[in-house]
Amino acid sequence: LIQSVLGTSLYLAKRDEILTQEASHYSGIDVPLKGKEWAVNDVIMTLKNSEISEGRRTSDFPPAVHFFHALPYIDKSKVFEIIKLMPKGAALHIHDNAITDINWLIKNATYRPHCYVCFTHARGNILFHYYDNQPTDNNTCEWKLVETERANSGDAEAYDQMLYDKISMITDDPHTAYPNQQIVWDYFNAYFAAVDGLVFYADVFKDYFRQGLQQFYDDGIQFMEVRALLQPTYELDGTTYNSEHTLLEYEAVNTEWLNDHQHDSMGSRIIFTSIRSSTNEVINNVINLAMELHSKYPNFMKGFDLVSQEDDGHPLIYFLEELLIPTQAGKDLPYYFHAGETNWQGTETDENLIDALMLNSSRIGHGYAATKHPEVLLELKQRDIPLEVNPISNQVLKLVDDLRNHPASTLLADGYPIVVSSDDPATWGSTPLSHDFYEMFMGIASAKADLRLLKQLTTDSIKYSTLLEEEKASCMDMWSTEWDIFLDKVLEM
Amino acid sequence: LIQSVLGTSLYLAKRDEILTQEASHYSGIDVPLKGKEWAVNDVIMTLKNSEISEGRRTSDFPPAVHFFHALPYIDKSKVFEIIKLMPKGAALHIHDNAITDINWLIKNATYRPHCYVCFTHARGNILFHYYDNQPTDNNTCEWKLVETERANSGDAEAYDQMLYDKISMITDDPHTAYPNQQIVWDYFNAYFAAVDGLVFYADVFKDYFRQGLQQFYDDGIQFMEVRALLQPTYELDGTTYNSEHTLLEYEAVNTEWLNDHQHDSMGSRIIFTSIRSSTNEVINNVINLAMELHSKYPNFMKGFDLVSQEDDGHPLIYFLEELLIPTQAGKDLPYYFHAGETNWQGTETDENLIDALMLNSSRIGHGYAATKHPEVLLELKQRDIPLEVNPISNQVLKLVDDLRNHPASTLLADGYPIVVSSDDPATWGSTPLSHDFYEMFMGIASAKADLRLLKQLTTDSIKYSTLLEEEKASCMDMWSTEWDIFLDKVLEM
Ligand SMILES: [Zn+2]
Ligand SMILES: [Zn+2]
Repeated sequence: LIQSVLGTSLYLAKRDEILTQEASHYSGIDVPLKGKEWAVNDVIMTLKNSEISEGRRTSDFPPAVHFFHALPYIDKSKVFEIIKLMPKGAALHIHDNAITDINWLIKNATYRPHCYVCFTHARGNILFHYYDNQPTDNNTCEWKLVETERANSGDAEAYDQMLYDKISMITDDPHTAYPNQQIVWDYFNAYFAAVDGLVFYADVFKDYFRQGLQQFYDDGIQFMEVRALLQPTYELDGTTYNSEHTLLEYEAVNTEWLNDHQHDSMGSRIIFTSIRSSTNEVINNVINLAMELHSKYPNFMKGFDLVSQEDDGHPLIYFLEELLIPTQAGKDLPYYFHAGETNWQGTETDENLIDALMLNSSRIGHGYAATKHPEVLLELKQRDIPLEVNPISNQVLKLVDDLRNHPASTLLADGYPIVVSSDDPATWGSTPLSHDFYEMFMGIASAKADLRLLKQLTTDSIKYSTLLEEEKASCMDMWSTEWDIFLDKVLEM
Repeated sequence: LIQSVLGTSLYLAKRDEILTQEASHYSGIDVPLKGKEWAVNDVIMTLKNSEISEGRRTSDFPPAVHFFHALPYIDKSKVFEIIKLMPKGAALHIHDNAITDINWLIKNATYRPHCYVCFTHARGNILFHYYDNQPTDNNTCEWKLVETERANSGDAEAYDQMLYDKISMITDDPHTAYPNQQIVWDYFNAYFAAVDGLVFYADVFKDYFRQGLQQFYDDGIQFMEVRALLQPTYELDGTTYNSEHTLLEYEAVNTEWLNDHQHDSMGSRIIFTSIRSSTNEVINNVINLAMELHSKYPNFMKGFDLVSQEDDGHPLIYFLEELLIPTQAGKDLPYYFHAGETNWQGTETDENLIDALMLNSSRIGHGYAATKHPEVLLELKQRDIPLEVNPISNQVLKLVDDLRNHPASTLLADGYPIVVSSDDPATWGSTPLSHDFYEMFMGIASAKADLRLLKQLTTDSIKYSTLLEEEKASCMDMWSTEWDIFLDKVLEM
């Protein structure tokens, strides 16, 4: 009980006691540090403290401002430099067509033959598609061969930059470009419309995924769980394949990748997703397909989720009958539901959190509204269900402005299970995980949170992954090998 | 335990049970409604639900945007219309020179003789002072007689509007005008520099306070606790008076006011405040003065607080010795500390919360960082200490952008004691309490929070006030008389 104490020395002793009690609740506080870790911790905390005092002095603090403004400052940050070196375990909340950066798509995919582009009038207004020959029905869109357009432009570099700017959500003035959540989601959806035509071209599809694996690997990530719509890929002659074929293409790339990285990567798994604005009938079919694919490829297709704007689509309860099919059929289909990705409270969107828990979701995507739901918080702790927190996504999609206001700050202060992820890094030009870890460590976490929190977050990402127990063990071995290298690198900085 | 249940009907029953459990935590849920209250609740909730679904549909929702953009929409809101009619109990967190609107100061104070104005180059750049005759040492400021300036301007109305715009923080583009917290605080401090010269002129002082009492009364407020610096008032000939004199001026106005409002107002009390960037020596003197004034006027000067930018000034711990003087001297000096008015976590500013509790603060001003401090939250509940939540202040001074992200949302969801106040309504042109109640009810509270929350918040403001027990009883009587009138008015709408 914090009761006032007469003398200053007694007061200060009591005060320290309370601060220690508070710290005892903090995520990662009981993670043991040994050997070099203490020295690395000192290096990191000296840098963190100086960046924070600079922020307090100038009122200009990267996590407090929009990522598009903060990016140049974060990239110059010493703490960020260290985080990039750090092995980050598993990326558990990322979406299929937003893992590989747009530059690769432009410099690789759009330089392939038969690539057509067209500019619509809808928001975001750019589409791509590969055609055997010039399409004639130009009612929806006036398709032009990229090769010719680029040549006629007289400046390939400028032409490619134009394509990049149209596809990417990056802008100098996000407040003006995206005045509210509806408009920012229009541009976000337009990103996918733009890249789908490139990614789902059979010739591009596997290269795109391989490049994504490489980029995540390069950012110090040992394992990836990709939420994938498993849309059909298409050939030049118009042939299209089914979802199972898309899944097998992912698996082929994954198998090849694992052969090349037997000691430092656990590759990837797929979580099959469908759009939450679908009809009951569509979701009924998708659930049956998901059960079939999970039983056929149990260790690659690991579960199911509903995606797309949660405030806009149907809530989970709308698909209750469909989502109960697996349990009723005695079939196993693990769920990894997006839930509570909203600023609203007491509406069907934040109450998705309750259904995600009732439907036994193994993890919860975002869970941004969780701190407004005491019963949900109780369950998350009791059943050790982690929230997949995506700081930059929540900021770009306008759930929060200053990341120090992110509800995960409250959750870290009281030891709730959390994993850090990036949702759609390619869409806004962030690294696979490093920028999100920076925002979490510098903006959302306490100024006092140190290497122990980073160790907790990275190892938890493996613990809460879909890997089997022995796979988790080897992933941890890989992680700790990289961790020791990381410790030495920091001490040599 | 939220475990998945086989059949849909069982599932839905279990789901309702969980929603009811969650609701049972919510502030005000167990406030009984009787008679007309249920009908009024229906009226309010129909309007609230339609404004929220409009917000969900268009993504344009007043509490989600800056008050300066939201104001015209709030003023057209039916829910706001009802809140204006509602008796709101006590305003427990308001500052001396920000209670009476700027228009009164301009149309009344600056039309008095001997009023001089000057335009400095510092931010906010306007000062006023009354002088017997034209000051000659114009080194700091070139003082000009307002009377002459207004006449020479050829358009008194436009001249007055110019004065208003310079004094007020209101702007069409707050993001550009106030790019960070340091700059917005510069303009905020400049507001006080501008009005102090007018308010502390002895001839204006009592009228200003009387007008403040009137404006709060007109906004349906039964009682006010004013945080006052008790700066000396001055006469034309330069005579200045001491803090006790200022206190007695407040009391004189209060006594006169109570004579005129024996049945529908409890008038006001004063909380003596000092600036937290002062020296230890200054605070030592101030504490001794505060003890003296509290013992001389125990039922009018009710306690002590430290004000001004918390991130910038000294923390409470810096004045530990001074603040322990009353307890050590066995003297009673209740504290009402501003604490945690910050986005930082794990710094001396948010840790003011711990000292406020250890120093037995009866209430806590803002407490914005409380949700990041588990031990503080425990204490607030155990010792039933309310946070004084000032939504619009926290938005204008850039702690939060979208008010649905305000930490009070989490506190309401779990029944923490809270009172709603407005901090400095005159500075940004809001009503004494109605606009802040609107933001709390529509933006911070759940979409399901209804008349019971409003009843809890208004009656709590009396319960947690500095009124003596029998005074609280009469204040409650006044409130319930007004409440019954309010119920009828709503039903006649
Ligand atoms: Zn997502
Ligand atoms: Zn205040």
